[in-house]
Amino acid sequence: MNALLTDLYQLTMAAGYWQAGKLEETATFELFVRRLPPNRNFILAAGLQQAVEYLLNLRFGEEEIGYLKQLPQFQRVGEGFFDTLRAFRFTGDVFAVREGTPLFPGEPILTLRAPIMEAQIPETCLLSTVGFQTLVATKAARIVEAAGGRSVVEFGTRRAHSPEAGVLAARAAFIGGCAGTSNTLSGMRYGIPVFGTAAHSWVQSFPNEIEAFRQLQNLLGPKTTYLIDTYDTLEGAKRAAFLGEPFWGVRLDSGNLVELSRAVRAILDEAGFPDAKIMATGDLNEYKILELVAAGAPIDSFGVGTELATSSDAPSHGAVYKLVELGNGEQRRYTAKFSHEKATLPGAKQIFRFADSDVLARANETFAPGCEALLRPVIVRGEAVGREPSCAESREYARASVERLPKKLRSLFECEQPYRIDRSASLIKLSEEVSRRER
Amino acid sequence: MNALLTDLYQLTMAAGYWQAGKLEETATFELFVRRLPPNRNFILAAGLQQAVEYLLNLRFGEEEIGYLKQLPQFQRVGEGFFDTLRAFRFTGDVFAVREGTPLFPGEPILTLRAPIMEAQIPETCLLSTVGFQTLVATKAARIVEAAGGRSVVEFGTRRAHSPEAGVLAARAAFIGGCAGTSNTLSGMRYGIPVFGTAAHSWVQSFPNEIEAFRQLQNLLGPKTTYLIDTYDTLEGAKRAAFLGEPFWGVRLDSGNLVELSRAVRAILDEAGFPDAKIMATGDLNEYKILELVAAGAPIDSFGVGTELATSSDAPSHGAVYKLVELGNGEQRRYTAKFSHEKATLPGAKQIFRFADSDVLARANETFAPGCEALLRPVIVRGEAVGREPSCAESREYARASVERLPKKLRSLFECEQPYRIDRSASLIKLSEEVSRRER
Repeated sequence: MNALLTDLYQLTMAAGYWQAGKLEETATFELFVRRLPPNRNFILAAGLQQAVEYLLNLRFGEEEIGYLKQLPQFQRVGEGFFDTLRAFRFTGDVFAVREGTPLFPGEPILTLRAPIMEAQIPETCLLSTVGFQTLVATKAARIVEAAGGRSVVEFGTRRAHSPEAGVLAARAAFIGGCAGTSNTLSGMRYGIPVFGTAAHSWVQSFPNEIEAFRQLQNLLGPKTTYLIDTYDTLEGAKRAAFLGEPFWGVRLDSGNLVELSRAVRAILDEAGFPDAKIMATGDLNEYKILELVAAGAPIDSFGVGTELATSSDAPSHGAVYKLVELGNGEQRRYTAKFSHEKATLPGAKQIFRFADSDVLARANETFAPGCEALLRPVIVRGEAVGREPSCAESREYARASVERLPKKLRSLFECEQPYRIDRSASLIKLSEEVSRRER
Repeated sequence: MNALLTDLYQLTMAAGYWQAGKLEETATFELFVRRLPPNRNFILAAGLQQAVEYLLNLRFGEEEIGYLKQLPQFQRVGEGFFDTLRAFRFTGDVFAVREGTPLFPGEPILTLRAPIMEAQIPETCLLSTVGFQTLVATKAARIVEAAGGRSVVEFGTRRAHSPEAGVLAARAAFIGGCAGTSNTLSGMRYGIPVFGTAAHSWVQSFPNEIEAFRQLQNLLGPKTTYLIDTYDTLEGAKRAAFLGEPFWGVRLDSGNLVELSRAVRAILDEAGFPDAKIMATGDLNEYKILELVAAGAPIDSFGVGTELATSSDAPSHGAVYKLVELGNGEQRRYTAKFSHEKATLPGAKQIFRFADSDVLARANETFAPGCEALLRPVIVRGEAVGREPSCAESREYARASVERLPKKLRSLFECEQPYRIDRSASLIKLSEEVSRRER
């Protein structure tokens, strides 16, 4: 990622920190969400791998420096600042939860501790990278929950906010529980299963539907999925069966999916294809899928696009990146905000997860066995530590972690009783001290 | 953009077209939106430049081909297909409206005519690229309209759907009328004015606010904008004035912006800084800005982030890419869908814009003077034609075009009477012919 892919004020602040002689001052920032999006009872963390890669590769080239030098905001800063940018490397520490971890408001997804300039510049990209994938992984978990064991495939790149967002949405959706994606690049880059056969334009490009189906069968054999709603869904189902060759299944993309899936099921069964699958697509979301499942529609697989790749009912969540500590040793200062709606807690933290509650504690605390410390070091002194799990491993971790949550939290609607998060005595004490000092 | 950044089915269809001997068959697709998003009376086209660059640079490398070859979907296709991918170049024609053109449902933003494989593969990226930027440019036009002449700056990268989406959102927001962006890379890449000074963490990193302000003044001089709400907004305003040095203005990021802006204005005026500006930020959108303006809040400039970069009240619009013609000369076949909610019109089209209405016509029609043909050639036989306008030129074109629309269409709420779009006699005739043939 280009180093200028950040808000300009991160760079003017960097120049100011340089000018004020603060290059050695350490700052600790935490990235977390303030509130859950509507109808969500948890978020599912994702995007951490891209965040780590970004930090490890952050460099300023001559073109970038040349651009900054001619901006009015950088006319007063000494030339030494640009040399500092030329030599820029991220040398700090990062603690993060594993991708696929369910989290709650105020719990750090990522904690970054570095010289203040190195900690400030990445804010924008970290928020966008982690925020977006977390949004989509969370949405995917809801859709997969609604599908009740039927497979869900992500189909949303065409409606994603830029093609690259589509690649990352596919990744996050897979971690959130989807079986795979239509995004071919995401398949190559992240090893995610890819799906897809043909669109309406395929059918339209042949003189008739049966010829279009025959040609697809030639290409895909038993993996063929016939899209059967171009002209008439039931006729399409009959034509698919008429060809007589083994095929994977059919796809319905319009109409009353409950009625059509039943009628299509009957046609396929009667024609001797009881194992042929039925996939449904077309503006689906978790609520529509819940209804289809509740109605007993014989659908084996759902393809979800727009609503998944844009998390359209909650296209943002207020992920923030807040300064919690400044300086080292004796000089250390803890910071927080105490304003009514935007209150934050001071100091670097750890999340201890127990069977059915979390304890938010100070980073240096230890707890008895029986709980898991969720924030683990992923970068130490600018070097990656540990092996990054594959997307498939993160997906499995997410599945197991969500399954361990109290069942009611997996509802698609807001729980009356949110997840219990306690604060350690030490964190409460620190917060009170900082509050007294600031007031 | 990587050639695999597309839905897998585009590539399986490509393999199928190859296998069916359809490489020479020409197809014409149109990209348009079916419906306006809620509360919008037009969309503002954007992203065409990125679409053209994508098409001109679309190539398959060996890594991509190697990945495809091992997928189950490509086990039956002849080796010649992969040679065809190796030699892939886009050789077709593209017609598009100028970026910044206001458009209405059913009107093509882009028409692409090429051998069917070359026309099929780009669908996913074209929809995402043009769809997203159009969404943001449209949202920006609304926010700028609400601001009634006050400047609006785009601040949304941190909440954009991936960092790259933030770069493109900044570009689209500028075309839609914003004065600039905080996204530094967008500034360098597209020549857009960039803005930004300092965040709360800057203020918090110094022992007190006055010291933080003094250091910022050292760096930025008369361009300084003091963020004054870290501790107490009115005290912050007094401290900004107390320093006595010329500054650009102050930024309010929380609280009751009507009351605070008035009180801050009085403090600045009284302290001898009547020219210092007041900028407001913090979860703003077009409706909140409309209220602030209506209340007479003395705010000179608005910074808008999340809601602009994600178009959060309408994070998608159903942009589609539909086959309208197949084949050449005598063999030409026109295609359309006649289903109730998804009906389309056959044949390549032109949009003729008159003073207060459009006529949708066939592509080969000509109209009398007094109207403008909106779709212009941008790629002919695989080569770019004409000079791409700069973002500043597209922004000016958008401004002038929106100003020419009937005033009521610029409302932030849905107009009772939508824009008038007629169909030419020739287009109606073609549509009736195709409909008779298909029924």
